[in-house]
Amino acid sequence: MTKTRLEAFSDAVIAIIITIMILELRPPHSTEWSELKKLWPAFLSYIVSFTMLGIYWGNHHHLVHTIKEVRGGIIWANLHLLFWLSLIPFATAWMGENHFEKITVAAYALLANLCGIAYYILLLIIKKCNPGNNALLEVLNKQSKKGMISCIVYTVAIGAAVIDARIGGALIILVAIMWLIPDRNNERAVKEH
Amino acid sequence: MTKTRLEAFSDAVIAIIITIMILELRPPHSTEWSELKKLWPAFLSYIVSFTMLGIYWGNHHHLVHTIKEVRGGIIWANLHLLFWLSLIPFATAWMGENHFEKITVAAYALLANLCGIAYYILLLIIKKCNPGNNALLEVLNKQSKKGMISCIVYTVAIGAAVIDARIGGALIILVAIMWLIPDRNNERAVKEH
Amino acid sequence: MTKTRLEAFSDAVIAIIITIMILELRPPHSTEWSELKKLWPAFLSYIVSFTMLGIYWGNHHHLVHTIKEVRGGIIWANLHLLFWLSLIPFATAWMGENHFEKITVAAYALLANLCGIAYYILLLIIKKCNPGNNALLEVLNKQSKKGMISCIVYTVAIGAAVIDARIGGALIILVAIMWLIPDRNNERAVKEH
Amino acid sequence: MTKTRLEAFSDAVIAIIITIMILELRPPHSTEWSELKKLWPAFLSYIVSFTMLGIYWGNHHHLVHTIKEVRGGIIWANLHLLFWLSLIPFATAWMGENHFEKITVAAYALLANLCGIAYYILLLIIKKCNPGNNALLEVLNKQSKKGMISCIVYTVAIGAAVIDARIGGALIILVAIMWLIPDRNNERAVKEH
Repeated sequence: MTKTRLEAFSDAVIAIIITIMILELRPPHSTEWSELKKLWPAFLSYIVSFTMLGIYWGNHHHLVHTIKEVRGGIIWANLHLLFWLSLIPFATAWMGENHFEKITVAAYALLANLCGIAYYILLLIIKKCNPGNNALLEVLNKQSKKGMISCIVYTVAIGAAVIDARIGGALIILVAIMWLIPDRNNERAVKEH
Repeated sequence: MTKTRLEAFSDAVIAIIITIMILELRPPHSTEWSELKKLWPAFLSYIVSFTMLGIYWGNHHHLVHTIKEVRGGIIWANLHLLFWLSLIPFATAWMGENHFEKITVAAYALLANLCGIAYYILLLIIKKCNPGNNALLEVLNKQSKKGMISCIVYTVAIGAAVIDARIGGALIILVAIMWLIPDRNNERAVKEH
Repeated sequence: MTKTRLEAFSDAVIAIIITIMILELRPPHSTEWSELKKLWPAFLSYIVSFTMLGIYWGNHHHLVHTIKEVRGGIIWANLHLLFWLSLIPFATAWMGENHFEKITVAAYALLANLCGIAYYILLLIIKKCNPGNNALLEVLNKQSKKGMISCIVYTVAIGAAVIDARIGGALIILVAIMWLIPDRNNERAVKEH
Repeated sequence: MTKTRLEAFSDAVIAIIITIMILELRPPHSTEWSELKKLWPAFLSYIVSFTMLGIYWGNHHHLVHTIKEVRGGIIWANLHLLFWLSLIPFATAWMGENHFEKITVAAYALLANLCGIAYYILLLIIKKCNPGNNALLEVLNKQSKKGMISCIVYTVAIGAAVIDARIGGALIILVAIMWLIPDRNNERAVKEH
């Protein structure tokens, strides 16, 4: 029961975050295609954030699906993750409105990093609360390896963005692609469980 | 379990998209009926988009209801559909604020087309993942026939809107009506299943 | 299953409508209590709409709870109701920002009437689809009697508001109070069911 | 069934309240770090409100989880709580935009107090409707003791904020910390139940 409500609440929050971002994408007042084209940075930021939140939703789904018991620690680690995720529309709008200005891309990479760390903390607490659950452990190990790589790349991206926004942006997209590549072992482990 | 969460997340996103569109319908500052009447294009756009999202919700419901197994491919095809649907408030506001200017109606038809294609891709992936499910196949065949017609009409609507916005708009509404007509065979197939 | 999703979707839409109304209540730029006091019409409108939506949610809950089968007709009658409910934030903001100007109260009463009629249509369709369900019929008869009174009072309120906004407003609040009074027979019928 | 829907609706409303607050946090138009730093009061207000809503969600979860029967009174006491919670984004924005001006902190403490009282009323009604439920009673007694302390501290905070905003703010944060400290007896009682 408790698990269902944790999932339902997280789903609702992620669904709202992913959807209200569109409110930041203001339609141009003119009706020229050229005006619409000027929105490309905001649109590209939207795509990146939508994808990132989609990845978090999918992974969160895999993670919580295998939990057997929900303790207070998991609830708070989950809220901590949702807190950083909830700032994504803010960082997306700042980056999109300012055409990928160096500082805004660095801020976006920093937020992505904080989200990644919050996810990693959630992983650790779940691991601690579910010691004998082997199928879960296999998933956790996969996700924590990827999670650590993400945090390292995001940290590099913060510095890189200050020098050249394009390198920072490319690194952020690279992490998204790494997570998008289906992880057969991962799915198999969940299925067997 | 997984299926329930896929449904819950999709429902939440569609519910939010359908509802935040009203935030784009700003109440006039004056209190004259004439001021309210000037909002008719925004209001009409709202009705069209609300209906379209209602149709997607209903069809999505029928579709996912018959799935037996949710794989990674289905999750991503579903997020891809939700991505295009999430742009509807943007296209609706642009069209409504600019009183159905040709270019905005063409953009709306283009987005409707992209949503239709995304739905079609989701259909194909679900078909591939559920080979022996006959009741599902019957529903899928019906929906994919209608889906193909929709995409053709929407493509025509893009071109037509550039010439005359009213023809483009009429074609978009035509597709909605086609989906609104209840499909007895469809309902029967689901019920038997 | 279908019923659960109908409930979940309706709950989500009503929850979003009830909550995004707060976005229309802009905090004053100054920090004087007098500035905050000037917001009382917007705040009062918010209370009325919140209560009204709460009543709809409660009644909708009672109604759908007793349904045995969800058909296409019910889905569309439900979406039709949600459509009119979704306009409440718009009417609330218009009324609140214009300090209960006659025309805006009349518009609010008109919308309340349309919501009431949409609810009544939903009642009729559910009645038709569930012929042998006695417990449901008892609830339906109670709700349809109250529903008819509401529509008559709202119709009077439209006219009354044009003459004096306060009479119109009082009638709208009167209807809310009528629904708030607990209906023991109603609860008993649901419980027995 | 009824309980599930009460939980789902409350979860949805709290999830939306917690998430739309981010819409009040407007990204600065300039891309200087200094501009971003100026947002610290809005950001700090956001953290406090996010934490407070997280605490309400967790406690609400514990509370409703042990209920056996949902009556009309519980539904309305719950909506009453949601009403005051829904005003949090308003008070948060007012306080954040005005850099913790005395009056805005007092208003925030007042709202926190009203939320606390509404929660307390919900507790009392649930207690009355579930007389023989011992595990629930234990949870309720714990929560009502903390609830009473909260209301007293919030009342002091209203007065204190008028004199010095920092004391008012500190008291509000103090209450949050009191609720964040895990209550082992509480968790045990729920588990045994």
